[in-house]
Amino acid sequence: MSTLHYLGPEGSFTHAAGLENSERFSHRFGRSFSLASERTAADVFAAVKGSDDFGILAFESNVEGYVVPNLDSLIDADDVIGIDRVGLSVDFDAFVLPHHAELRQVSAHPHGLAQCRGFIEAGGYEQVPASSNAAACKDLTAQQVGLGPRMCGELYGLDTLQQEVQDYKGARTEFLLLCSRASAQKYLDEARNEGGYQFETVFVFIPLSTGPGVLAHALETMRDAGLNMTSFISRPIKGHDGTYSFIATVDAAPWEKRFVEAASTLLDNGDWVRTLAVYERPEHVSAPVETWMLPAGGVRSVDDPAADREVMWHGRKAEQ
Amino acid sequence: MSTLHYLGPEGSFTHAAGLENSERFSHRFGRSFSLASERTAADVFAAVKGSDDFGILAFESNVEGYVVPNLDSLIDADDVIGIDRVGLSVDFDAFVLPHHAELRQVSAHPHGLAQCRGFIEAGGYEQVPASSNAAACKDLTAQQVGLGPRMCGELYGLDTLQQEVQDYKGARTEFLLLCSRASAQKYLDEARNEGGYQFETVFVFIPLSTGPGVLAHALETMRDAGLNMTSFISRPIKGHDGTYSFIATVDAAPWEKRFVEAASTLLDNGDWVRTLAVYERPEHVSAPVETWMLPAGGVRSVDDPAADREVMWHGRKAEQ
Repeated sequence: MSTLHYLGPEGSFTHAAGLENSERFSHRFGRSFSLASERTAADVFAAVKGSDDFGILAFESNVEGYVVPNLDSLIDADDVIGIDRVGLSVDFDAFVLPHHAELRQVSAHPHGLAQCRGFIEAGGYEQVPASSNAAACKDLTAQQVGLGPRMCGELYGLDTLQQEVQDYKGARTEFLLLCSRASAQKYLDEARNEGGYQFETVFVFIPLSTGPGVLAHALETMRDAGLNMTSFISRPIKGHDGTYSFIATVDAAPWEKRFVEAASTLLDNGDWVRTLAVYERPEHVSAPVETWMLPAGGVRSVDDPAADREVMWHGRKAEQ
Repeated sequence: MSTLHYLGPEGSFTHAAGLENSERFSHRFGRSFSLASERTAADVFAAVKGSDDFGILAFESNVEGYVVPNLDSLIDADDVIGIDRVGLSVDFDAFVLPHHAELRQVSAHPHGLAQCRGFIEAGGYEQVPASSNAAACKDLTAQQVGLGPRMCGELYGLDTLQQEVQDYKGARTEFLLLCSRASAQKYLDEARNEGGYQFETVFVFIPLSTGPGVLAHALETMRDAGLNMTSFISRPIKGHDGTYSFIATVDAAPWEKRFVEAASTLLDNGDWVRTLAVYERPEHVSAPVETWMLPAGGVRSVDDPAADREVMWHGRKAEQ
């Protein structure tokens, strides 16, 4: 039995992600988990560091992008690594007390309120912001509708007024399961020996020399090794303007020849390298970009008459 | 006289960024601005599109990274482009009513409350979440402390209890001044003719073919043209899993030979290209990365005994 520390309070989306995947985690890591609510992400990292406990935190949303404070904490974390990645639809249900009065108000975290505008306007409710969606549901009054993850209903003994009341139906957040590097190494060694798994790796590198071409050279290294990237971003090094770390997600385990070759070349250049997460590869859609998927506007040819307006240059004639 | 539309309510950090820079904007764009509060970012985009009006929205924070929903809106925006970039320290002042009672509560947006934990715990205040920091200050009761930007004091007739009560002093948000492409082209043509300005360009490109090396090839193109990047990220194309757009910030105006060369090569490859923002280049610190700036852990050599633990491989011997 291990503890799985999540960013609370009870009934948060992170709690829901932990509960929904507890069977998967148990099966994968050969133990059962009891969940423990933590007040801050820093508390989750502190509980996992150097221990047998696991943690779970939001990592990336298809609407908001990376959860940058959690990513930065993982880059800085002394002994914590991501070992599984699970997704959760960000759906809001509307809850009421079993014997509620006339409903006049709606309560949720301001982000929750902002994501359910249509429902709130249709009901003509007054908005009451809460510190979290779970807190809104927990402290619901007789004249309030609370918005939160499905599990808040059972958790706080509420009736469901309506399911999935959010405006945008496709919002999804990916969570990382966290453990110590020692636990991760043990699990990954077993998985390698067993065989048959495909992994994906998130790693960070910092070139110590800067200037034009440093990044292109690093990415050439990955291309030459045959590594395909599914995500790439630059992040300023905290407190040091003008310095950058690069975070890449690639379709290989860190012990595969392609990865070893690329990482060795980066290290031989004097770059700083750390692996942030290794997890079973989610199924990626093989997705050619069709022209109908492109945003409105933009151009695809230097001869397009819209190029001046869209690129803000004066074409090939500019300053040549 | 033009209207400058900001994401409200009155007293928001975006309002503060607009007010603090109104002289700069007036001087630069040869007109005075009257500020208008908008309820959503979409309302700001709608007000700017096809008009002479300007807008201002948060673009990037050194703590949270890009404000991804605003970035996505700019990628999709039919006729809106960034034309200036200004920074604002995210400082919270603590306000009270002039004839306040005993102070028992503190009110702000949950993000504001989370950023002022030390102050709140020292005062032993009960937390009252609000829909925005400005709303907290506007609706302050006699027993409450409100947290918000400095301008909320004068705006809502409040006394300052204490300045800069946030936990972390270095938080900074960058805002983009937005206008129509026609206004931008007019201004940029004048600036070019006048000369003496140095510009920076944010642009997005989407390679229509995907696979290993597509990105490396694009970045090689920029390196070969001599373009230096100060920021780079990949973003999934909304609603199309597995497809990506790339957003790069480079140290050149779009009409400079280096940019024209790189953009022409991308277009000749069949990539889709759009310029998102062109603004006077902020002063970038020339910053070599010193080893003391690196996060704890990680490795810099394949022979480092910590490499197994930090990279999660088995060194050069792995699967070779």
